[in-house]
Amino acid sequence: MNKADFSYEKIVKGEGFQTHTVKWEALRDYCKRLFMSQSMPEEDAFTVADALVDADLSGVPSHGTTRTQIYLKRLEAGVVNPVFKPVIEKENPASVLVNANNGNGMVAGKYAMELACKKARDNGSCFVFVNHSNHIGMAGYYPKIAASKGMIGFTTTSANPGIAPWGSRQPFLGTSPIAIAAPTRGDPVLLDMAPSQVAMGKVVLAAKLGTAIPEGWALDADGKPTTDPNEGKKGSVVPIGGPKGSGLSFFSQILGGILSGAQYGPHVNTLYYDFKNPQEMGHVFAAIDISGLMDLNVFQDRMETIIREIKALPRIEGVMEIFLPGEIEMRLRKQRMREGIQITDVVYQELKDLGEKYGVQFSLESCGE
Amino acid sequence: MNKADFSYEKIVKGEGFQTHTVKWEALRDYCKRLFMSQSMPEEDAFTVADALVDADLSGVPSHGTTRTQIYLKRLEAGVVNPVFKPVIEKENPASVLVNANNGNGMVAGKYAMELACKKARDNGSCFVFVNHSNHIGMAGYYPKIAASKGMIGFTTTSANPGIAPWGSRQPFLGTSPIAIAAPTRGDPVLLDMAPSQVAMGKVVLAAKLGTAIPEGWALDADGKPTTDPNEGKKGSVVPIGGPKGSGLSFFSQILGGILSGAQYGPHVNTLYYDFKNPQEMGHVFAAIDISGLMDLNVFQDRMETIIREIKALPRIEGVMEIFLPGEIEMRLRKQRMREGIQITDVVYQELKDLGEKYGVQFSLESCGE
Repeated sequence: MNKADFSYEKIVKGEGFQTHTVKWEALRDYCKRLFMSQSMPEEDAFTVADALVDADLSGVPSHGTTRTQIYLKRLEAGVVNPVFKPVIEKENPASVLVNANNGNGMVAGKYAMELACKKARDNGSCFVFVNHSNHIGMAGYYPKIAASKGMIGFTTTSANPGIAPWGSRQPFLGTSPIAIAAPTRGDPVLLDMAPSQVAMGKVVLAAKLGTAIPEGWALDADGKPTTDPNEGKKGSVVPIGGPKGSGLSFFSQILGGILSGAQYGPHVNTLYYDFKNPQEMGHVFAAIDISGLMDLNVFQDRMETIIREIKALPRIEGVMEIFLPGEIEMRLRKQRMREGIQITDVVYQELKDLGEKYGVQFSLESCGE
Repeated sequence: MNKADFSYEKIVKGEGFQTHTVKWEALRDYCKRLFMSQSMPEEDAFTVADALVDADLSGVPSHGTTRTQIYLKRLEAGVVNPVFKPVIEKENPASVLVNANNGNGMVAGKYAMELACKKARDNGSCFVFVNHSNHIGMAGYYPKIAASKGMIGFTTTSANPGIAPWGSRQPFLGTSPIAIAAPTRGDPVLLDMAPSQVAMGKVVLAAKLGTAIPEGWALDADGKPTTDPNEGKKGSVVPIGGPKGSGLSFFSQILGGILSGAQYGPHVNTLYYDFKNPQEMGHVFAAIDISGLMDLNVFQDRMETIIREIKALPRIEGVMEIFLPGEIEMRLRKQRMREGIQITDVVYQELKDLGEKYGVQFSLESCGE
């Protein structure tokens, strides 16, 4: 391990790693065909591939196509249902309970967010809770759907233990993301954050790439700070603001895991280590229709004003530009749609091997190094 | 200033300060009469006094009766409307816009949260946005109302600049609280947090008490760390998780200040320094009715299970008990209802002086020191 050299930004940009530049649509198409090889209908396979590639485009490779392998492995093991329909179990004007029937979490999530938006348009707002579900990938994918319809979007989910409740040394609470988006006339603003200093996915990726992690990211199984991602994977990640991050995750378990009728924390079966039991994850997707409260144009004008004001603030020495939540990701996304996505050789080879394993023609031309 | 001795816990307990122990109902009654002296109707004066004393009971003195003085001063200056009715401007099944007509924020907040609960009972969930409002005090007061009705409650608000957007050195975003509560068969669990390492109110209280603050709480006007609360008051408080806390506050300004049609950050007039203009604060209060999704008994059973599980986890060395969000406050609240509230001599004298100033009979018997 080269501790001194570690930088997550370097992983995102591929600096210091051998990378391949691939076209995003080709990557999406290839992943779609991989999922279809495991009996997923084309439309659903497209949704999963689109959500994974969206993470790669946005510079969140921990939740990108590096996860294709594990999603396929679970389908192959028969612990995820490839062909399913989400079923509405309870329906009120502004709250719905959906059973995902152990289908892919991204497919269920997209369905749930679109349902939340449809009902928010009619009623002002709506929460859709989902149970019997699986990993949803990058949580920010869903609120962006709401923002594209002129709505505020919100997502959180239950998750496997990653955070020790404040005062404890044992991981119990999930590193559950909280994602919220608001529309502007251009790209939405999007906050997509784990309640920890970093998402466990970043520790997992560092372990895969064989590089150390900075102090303050993770604690080992004894609750002691570590820079070894393999030890961090066995331990917990440090919550932001101490009891505050721990409390945020507690409420993600309550909303995503308890009120949904799904599981939470230690009762969510792991994506990576359990191939006998469904994950039993739960989520919540919410939308607030802006037009029910205020003319969307007025809202957009006000958003432009606050953004202009923030951009014009005096900066800390050395800072070239003040970025809004999600802005770096949106900007990288556009650049990568034009110029291609740098994926590390580790992930590139992994994807190539998956094609051989599942009999899918490899179609990722590397258009750079 | 005695830097070494500073501890917020000491302020809460009154350690190191001369304190007076007063009965909570007497304190509430006295504050109510003070507000009535400035033309507030008894019911509204009671609500404000109840919310302030609830903060003192809960060990959050920064948002307690120490604020009586400033609330009265604003009423006296005529910048807050003592007699008002909140008016519904837009109403959908699950979203409402309320104009608080520049009345007290606590009265408007209680009204809005009760309205959110009523409509959530009918429709599953509801968001109530409030504009033309004022300071709401301790945000956790409102979600507790929802929890007492078997609902999830949520509150946030726009607020004066306290946090510099990540990358900037100028405070612009409010230290807006995020408060969320869930019911159990006993006390609710309640997360009530600023998106900063500490609330600006704690810096303000330290300044009032003439004691230093720990490093990591605040930055001065040049964006440099400080332990002097007076410099911190002129600067900004440090957001939790860096860009995460900054992003959370950005969304509190969007929901509380922009979508409500109210003001945000630098456009919210200050509670303490502007006696010519209304604050123009905005808030959002949301409720989700549990019974629309799941039998409340099943939810309560599941809450008991997760609480039992968390309490039984192995603890960090030196930790005697793992506390849930809000548990320390709820426990202190009950103790103080039985044994009285310790308030510092500074606040005690301030309250006494207010009685003289506004012609209200002082009725706070100190039952210990």
